[in-house]
Amino acid sequence: MNEFDFISEYLAPLAGPGGLGLKDDAAILKPREGMDLILTKDTMVEGLHFPTGNYGTSLSSKLLRVNLSDLAAKGAIPIGYLLSVALPKTVGNKFFKDFSDGLNEVQKLFDLNLLGGDTVVTEGKIVITATLIGEVPSGSMVKRDGAKVGNSIWVSGTLGDAYLGLKTIFEANSNLNINQNDIKHFRSAYYSPVPRLLVAKQLRKYATACIDISDGLVADALHLSQASNVNLTISIDDIPISDQSQRWLLFQSDYDEALKKFLNWGDDYELLFTSNSNNDDLFKRVSSELGLRLTKIGKVRKGEGVNVLKAKKLISFDKTGHKHMFANNKML
Amino acid sequence: MNEFDFISEYLAPLAGPGGLGLKDDAAILKPREGMDLILTKDTMVEGLHFPTGNYGTSLSSKLLRVNLSDLAAKGAIPIGYLLSVALPKTVGNKFFKDFSDGLNEVQKLFDLNLLGGDTVVTEGKIVITATLIGEVPSGSMVKRDGAKVGNSIWVSGTLGDAYLGLKTIFEANSNLNINQNDIKHFRSAYYSPVPRLLVAKQLRKYATACIDISDGLVADALHLSQASNVNLTISIDDIPISDQSQRWLLFQSDYDEALKKFLNWGDDYELLFTSNSNNDDLFKRVSSELGLRLTKIGKVRKGEGVNVLKAKKLISFDKTGHKHMFANNKML
Repeated sequence: MNEFDFISEYLAPLAGPGGLGLKDDAAILKPREGMDLILTKDTMVEGLHFPTGNYGTSLSSKLLRVNLSDLAAKGAIPIGYLLSVALPKTVGNKFFKDFSDGLNEVQKLFDLNLLGGDTVVTEGKIVITATLIGEVPSGSMVKRDGAKVGNSIWVSGTLGDAYLGLKTIFEANSNLNINQNDIKHFRSAYYSPVPRLLVAKQLRKYATACIDISDGLVADALHLSQASNVNLTISIDDIPISDQSQRWLLFQSDYDEALKKFLNWGDDYELLFTSNSNNDDLFKRVSSELGLRLTKIGKVRKGEGVNVLKAKKLISFDKTGHKHMFANNKML
Repeated sequence: MNEFDFISEYLAPLAGPGGLGLKDDAAILKPREGMDLILTKDTMVEGLHFPTGNYGTSLSSKLLRVNLSDLAAKGAIPIGYLLSVALPKTVGNKFFKDFSDGLNEVQKLFDLNLLGGDTVVTEGKIVITATLIGEVPSGSMVKRDGAKVGNSIWVSGTLGDAYLGLKTIFEANSNLNINQNDIKHFRSAYYSPVPRLLVAKQLRKYATACIDISDGLVADALHLSQASNVNLTISIDDIPISDQSQRWLLFQSDYDEALKKFLNWGDDYELLFTSNSNNDDLFKRVSSELGLRLTKIGKVRKGEGVNVLKAKKLISFDKTGHKHMFANNKML
């Protein structure tokens, strides 16, 4: 199967009207009046963002999910996407089918269409890129630079599950002592992060700044603090942890060091946002109405950088953020 | 230098207002009323679309140029682009500087801005992708599927120069017998194809279908014929050839076989379009006014496929289009 067959057999059925059946070089998009378009782009590289040789539907599904998470952080509603796929000649029909099934799954879940893209052959590692297009009512995009002193800091979902998901992929389970149900939970968090599009509307209205957590809570909080020119003070005791992660943490010889991993590792794709503290009750209500955990984890202060407190004492981090998740299929 | 430095030092200065200084995860685009957006995406892989190890400013410059060529084929005016760059750790500061210089050169020439994107590290080959965004007055995008029986077939510029450019890169010059000025001309055609945006306005008004020639004249004519459900009959005697290419052709033992290479090889990034034959004089005038060679090379007929005639006799092609330009730094 060559690139033209891959496109016509597997990708063309996923195209929306603007994609022109993927028979053209370009896609057409008729913007709706009164809306701004939001564009975001993320790339995944084999052996770096996903394990070498471990494909299945989760590969393309995750590519869309991490890009949708960027849109969610902007308060945007997805419209469509363009795809770029660099593949070695060795991939076969199963790969193509899984790849399109993964796209289809996410398209249905989050209501977006394939607009176009291209496929090329590479002698090297698989590299896949998606450009996502979303929209917001004009002027309402949530940026990174609007956090104000006194704002509350919120985070969606729970942190650390994706980290443990990856751990269960690379380490023998007997060493980890995690039960099968929890393994399933962690791997789902790693392979299928849920873009928090559910809360986009409230973010547009009430968030002063937002970022999605792809490099780790502390690293991404730092990006937000730098853009907004403020300090973010976070209480580690308030970090939301799933029951499954809690079970794992309690087995660790050094609970605090293990917890720090959760704050340094990426892949959570939860949202970190700031909002006027007058909205604290509102977000608690929204959380319960949407069935989406939203947790207040700190306060925006004058100054710069990120402070993480434990029982009101500053704790230190050797390094923040991960540039690589693994090399030669070992976690780094 | 890591990816964050590459972005802040080299790429951020290239960002337009919608790119938010590349400090956000997303770009914002405020569509103009009455305009449709045109989106296109092309990827280049090291060792496939450009020679391994041969970088310089031409790498990023060509990436934008080939994408702009897709926009030109749609009759679109460029607005901006998103970039995705997967690089090995081994690339150094010179690479980053050349890469941003190449982007800057094209931005200035064709008036577009960087909107965003991402950079990642790969253990494999360099893979770079650009998503270009352009606009056309609502409903005026030129598609592939509008060619009508009786239409004239036109091509911009000259064909074959880029093929010879690549040949001078891979073969010892003494074998090729090409003078230094001609080498310069061919390599410029290969490294710096000129997207034919100049003629976009006339295409929107008068072209019934258009495609840019990236896979070779015959292969791309076939794409257009399939989309439009017509036959394209082209006279090989009318193919526009530069004086430089003509000099090379005259040295070949089999002129016709050599000329066929020009029609089978890609990389020209010229436009192939169809238009009502009533517009023949108009396009001749446009050609002279714009200083852009436009040549009528055939006629749209009932039927399917592409016929190439020489002195009114059908000539055959073993294969059309190239899927790979080279592997292990040899031309295939």
